[in-house]
Amino acid sequence: MTIYDISQKAGVSIATVSRVLNGSDKVSAKTRKKVLDVMERYSYTPNAFARGLGLNTSHTVGILCADSSDLYLAKAVYYLEQMLRDKGYDCILCCCGYNLENKIKYSNLLLSKKVDSIVFVGSNFVEANEESNSYIRDIACTHPVMILNADYAAPNVYSCLCDDYHAVLEATEELISSGRKNIIYIYNSTSYSGSKKLTGYMDAMNTHGLTAVTEFIDRRYEVSDEILDTAKTLEGLCSSGTKVDAVVCADDQLALGAVKFARRAGLSIPQDIAIIGYNNSMLAVSNEPELTSVDNRLELLCKQLVNNLIEILSGAEIPRKTIYSGLLVKRGTT
Amino acid sequence: MTIYDISQKAGVSIATVSRVLNGSDKVSAKTRKKVLDVMERYSYTPNAFARGLGLNTSHTVGILCADSSDLYLAKAVYYLEQMLRDKGYDCILCCCGYNLENKIKYSNLLLSKKVDSIVFVGSNFVEANEESNSYIRDIACTHPVMILNADYAAPNVYSCLCDDYHAVLEATEELISSGRKNIIYIYNSTSYSGSKKLTGYMDAMNTHGLTAVTEFIDRRYEVSDEILDTAKTLEGLCSSGTKVDAVVCADDQLALGAVKFARRAGLSIPQDIAIIGYNNSMLAVSNEPELTSVDNRLELLCKQLVNNLIEILSGAEIPRKTIYSGLLVKRGTT
Repeated sequence: MTIYDISQKAGVSIATVSRVLNGSDKVSAKTRKKVLDVMERYSYTPNAFARGLGLNTSHTVGILCADSSDLYLAKAVYYLEQMLRDKGYDCILCCCGYNLENKIKYSNLLLSKKVDSIVFVGSNFVEANEESNSYIRDIACTHPVMILNADYAAPNVYSCLCDDYHAVLEATEELISSGRKNIIYIYNSTSYSGSKKLTGYMDAMNTHGLTAVTEFIDRRYEVSDEILDTAKTLEGLCSSGTKVDAVVCADDQLALGAVKFARRAGLSIPQDIAIIGYNNSMLAVSNEPELTSVDNRLELLCKQLVNNLIEILSGAEIPRKTIYSGLLVKRGTT
Repeated sequence: MTIYDISQKAGVSIATVSRVLNGSDKVSAKTRKKVLDVMERYSYTPNAFARGLGLNTSHTVGILCADSSDLYLAKAVYYLEQMLRDKGYDCILCCCGYNLENKIKYSNLLLSKKVDSIVFVGSNFVEANEESNSYIRDIACTHPVMILNADYAAPNVYSCLCDDYHAVLEATEELISSGRKNIIYIYNSTSYSGSKKLTGYMDAMNTHGLTAVTEFIDRRYEVSDEILDTAKTLEGLCSSGTKVDAVVCADDQLALGAVKFARRAGLSIPQDIAIIGYNNSMLAVSNEPELTSVDNRLELLCKQLVNNLIEILSGAEIPRKTIYSGLLVKRGTT
């Protein structure tokens, strides 16, 4: 018996059940009775929600990310920890890699350490195959689940994300409107966010009657290998006759690979070839010329997620999904 | 009463006390009796070491690092987690920033989550002021403490580190022997490891009768700001008449700042200016030309630390300190 079952059987929202458990005065006497009756009928003990009553709160939040050495994920974890600390919450973090078995194992480990909530950092936690997401639903039965940069519709699950689709669509259209025709898209992930970006590129090219050329680069143990792979892939493409006057990349490290390719081929940036990265990470500024890159508003997203979480833990109702627009930061490569 | 006190009063090593608690047969009957007598006299209950008897082990290791968005620390955490997982241990991580109060707070948080050991990642955990290190001694009374890339001499504390002093000394001498005379050193930390590196540079310059010029760059919230600060600092130095024909940096990001300076000033790399970074991180390869950088053997250090930890938890004795030599990886900037 979970809070989800109770909300179903009482015909009220999870937030309402939570409010009843929290003793909030925003619930009518009638609704309160309905909820309490269901709980009694099914002998529900609000273990997990006792912390909502201040009985069992640890003021500790569990954070799960695939890999802390990924620049984007590391930055997200950094922001979340800083912001949660400011709100009086401690964080414990597990890095679980990309396979499902370990996602489940480490989620359970965090729960066993008595966290108040679990934050999934990165879109790789939501899989296309719905069955693989049942662990998220399971956790959400007892703990609010926050997801950064992926959307998953289930009770007690809340998402904060960047509109990656429009961000890549607009970046590609920017190149098209400046006269580029042979725009290649390079990506390294087919996650929720990865698919959105890819579709944004495809739609921009199709709308303007241009031929889409995409290249997938395998995620590598070392980021530097991804950079080298990208450079090699572009070399291969060009030597087989494919024309390139611009490259849009799903990640800044791939864009650095494109810069490496251009330098080696003696192409000038941006005259001969324009390059756009994604994430607006330190890599964008580390390069000279600095990379034009899509800022996916990571700091804003983290801030929103933390504010949402604090609201939920205090029994308030918040939107299931919060979306920010990306921002194209123009620099020396376009 | 701690295991340290018992080892003192019984006149044996901590490892021996641990072996007695673990029921190891590598202890003589006489020594065993001596240890057990002390324990009885002081009514010692081996709570913390009950896990050594398999009674209370969580098979979970606590990892503490200042900031998971630091490239070096993030990579270290990644290696440690992968390697510990292979040995059947889970990890929970806290990022505690650079101030002492939070180091102590997060250490205690990890201990409250029943970890078998604490691993401090990064030399910033050991301060020059001995009083500030008492928290390490306190933890070591009940849990083995592992430190990556700093040395701290105390019972039950074990260090794995790179010989940063000789690594920078040799990198600087390499430049000198190739005819460079105006070699500037740029650094952003005065931690244990930071001081060793600085001394390595100073000694190399002094030995060859060259004038040392050092510039300190403040650690910044954004790595890209450190890159820009480094470029600006070098611009300032040169415009005030300081000659530069080489730059040795305590971190790859600072070296990228030197590259940025060189590009902006129209200097060719390495003809007009040679640049050496440190850490051999992804930033070294991301740049074109790729950075010559000191590989501080992070993967090896992590492997050694994990092997040491597993040995200690099984009651074996290991050296207090393990040191690897750095390795100068020569690429396009020298």
